[in-house]
Amino acid sequence: MTAVRTLGEFELIDLFTRDLPAVGEGVRIGVGDDAAVVEPPRGEWLVATVDAVVEGVHFGPGFSPEDVGWKSLAVNLSDLAAMGARPLWALVALGAPRGADPARLARVGAGLARCAAAHRVAVVGGNVTAARELSLTVTALGGVRRGRLLTRQGARPGDVLLVSGTLGDAALGLEPEAAPALRRRQRRPVPRLALGQALCGIATACIDLSDGLLQDLGHLCDASRVGARVRLDRLPLSRAYRAATRGRRDSWAAAATGGEDYELLVTVPARKVPAALAAARRAGTRLAVVGEVVSGAGVAALRPDGRPYRPRRAGHDHLRPGPRAGF
Amino acid sequence: MTAVRTLGEFELIDLFTRDLPAVGEGVRIGVGDDAAVVEPPRGEWLVATVDAVVEGVHFGPGFSPEDVGWKSLAVNLSDLAAMGARPLWALVALGAPRGADPARLARVGAGLARCAAAHRVAVVGGNVTAARELSLTVTALGGVRRGRLLTRQGARPGDVLLVSGTLGDAALGLEPEAAPALRRRQRRPVPRLALGQALCGIATACIDLSDGLLQDLGHLCDASRVGARVRLDRLPLSRAYRAATRGRRDSWAAAATGGEDYELLVTVPARKVPAALAAARRAGTRLAVVGEVVSGAGVAALRPDGRPYRPRRAGHDHLRPGPRAGF
Repeated sequence: MTAVRTLGEFELIDLFTRDLPAVGEGVRIGVGDDAAVVEPPRGEWLVATVDAVVEGVHFGPGFSPEDVGWKSLAVNLSDLAAMGARPLWALVALGAPRGADPARLARVGAGLARCAAAHRVAVVGGNVTAARELSLTVTALGGVRRGRLLTRQGARPGDVLLVSGTLGDAALGLEPEAAPALRRRQRRPVPRLALGQALCGIATACIDLSDGLLQDLGHLCDASRVGARVRLDRLPLSRAYRAATRGRRDSWAAAATGGEDYELLVTVPARKVPAALAAARRAGTRLAVVGEVVSGAGVAALRPDGRPYRPRRAGHDHLRPGPRAGF
Repeated sequence: MTAVRTLGEFELIDLFTRDLPAVGEGVRIGVGDDAAVVEPPRGEWLVATVDAVVEGVHFGPGFSPEDVGWKSLAVNLSDLAAMGARPLWALVALGAPRGADPARLARVGAGLARCAAAHRVAVVGGNVTAARELSLTVTALGGVRRGRLLTRQGARPGDVLLVSGTLGDAALGLEPEAAPALRRRQRRPVPRLALGQALCGIATACIDLSDGLLQDLGHLCDASRVGARVRLDRLPLSRAYRAATRGRRDSWAAAATGGEDYELLVTVPARKVPAALAAARRAGTRLAVVGEVVSGAGVAALRPDGRPYRPRRAGHDHLRPGPRAGF
């Protein structure tokens, strides 16, 4: 960040928050008191998640300030999507270096505001603090009808594995000279909120793909106490992905292990697959069958010739450069 | 932080979270899925706040790892106290430098766990990420009966100003060779949760004292569109405070402007002062009358001889060393 002048905190808060949507469903007291007060929708459970994006870890100079703001909320909304939740409110903690360029911070706020408005999220509170690097830690709160939600735990042997959208684009978007469509997937992920909600009552388990298909599938299998088989030639790939990986050995590698696609991975009983595909169409996206759930444990990824594929690493580790890990 | 060895994220999460209380009222799904799922108590509104503590900004080498963990949650619970809320759940985002000492991170988690257990808070989710400095960003969620809460907005001219406990101890606790009692107030603040809940229906407005009495009183007055007069010889001072400031000019200065006491400042109609004092006794603390609400705007602080006191700075600014600012 360019040092311009040191702003006071209240001035900075004004700049950062001026575009944020502060009102919304159930907001009784938003920004400006010691805490926010919201009224949970009757008959709903509350779904809550927190995630951080840190300069130099989750984003670098290739990100515009608006990208950083957008992504900080979008990755949280993706967690709500994976639970089948409808987003309602967010709280935002900003860490800003002393002497940070106020105009840049205002643009971060504007990007966050745009993501919030696009998904009807009210930003009801937050915090600003000095820090050595720019970071945004966002808490997202959503609602689900009591008991009607998706978790990682319900997959059963025989269920079909499906993923939404296309895989690997976000990882390729980090490469030098990546095509604009790939860079955009990395910088402006779109949470699959409508899809998650549409799959409640259809899918038996769900997880969002933040760490890469094989690693996240491993988490789902562990939680459900099952195993899985993935067919690498079935992974849904975008045109830009195919163009970028043409001629590469193991061209499916980025789709199998690359992080930050923020697509949904779901397991669906075979007889409900048509309903799942229809739900995806209504939600404006697609689901592709990529494998099946088996009894036992562990994830087997199969090459087109049937031989197993063993990636050098299955996905991201969040204390090395890459995304973040929830618990 | 001492570099020992680089841990993987899942190993680190295990270490950091092993002591955290994961179950509690209304927890349907805690740590381990894409998001937490909780059931808000029937007939209650949800109160939500987020705050960060950052190494080198909010704590230094004088803090034990357990202190850091404790304080990161306590400052959030203090915001819930100021709204009259009962704490329920928390989410915790940890930023940890690469190569951080795992034992130290486990001790941070243990301190956080102790504060959570002391106040019956279930930690339902969180996140860990690499960062250049150690930081903890905590979101606290609580409940209030619908409409039965405290805000900054209800103070009226004629109301009496009261503060809980004693003031200035935490600020003095930062001085070299501060007495243990003062250092403890700085490192292990105790949120006034029972008091906040007891004052619902009695106080007209409330704020917690994070930035210093005069600055926080200014926020309360701005929100309520009133002014206030504070009598500096009425500020409640601890024995340790008196001993530390004996012989100093303006010995009340730390009590008037020092931050991080996390006491409550409340306004109470004159006829309800006895009820407020009784509620404080039942909540195990004391309230002291320190001034009154007046019409107009602004805070006047009066010396014992009636002359006005104008501090060089009214409190903390969070982009300089000091605490944090909510919005």
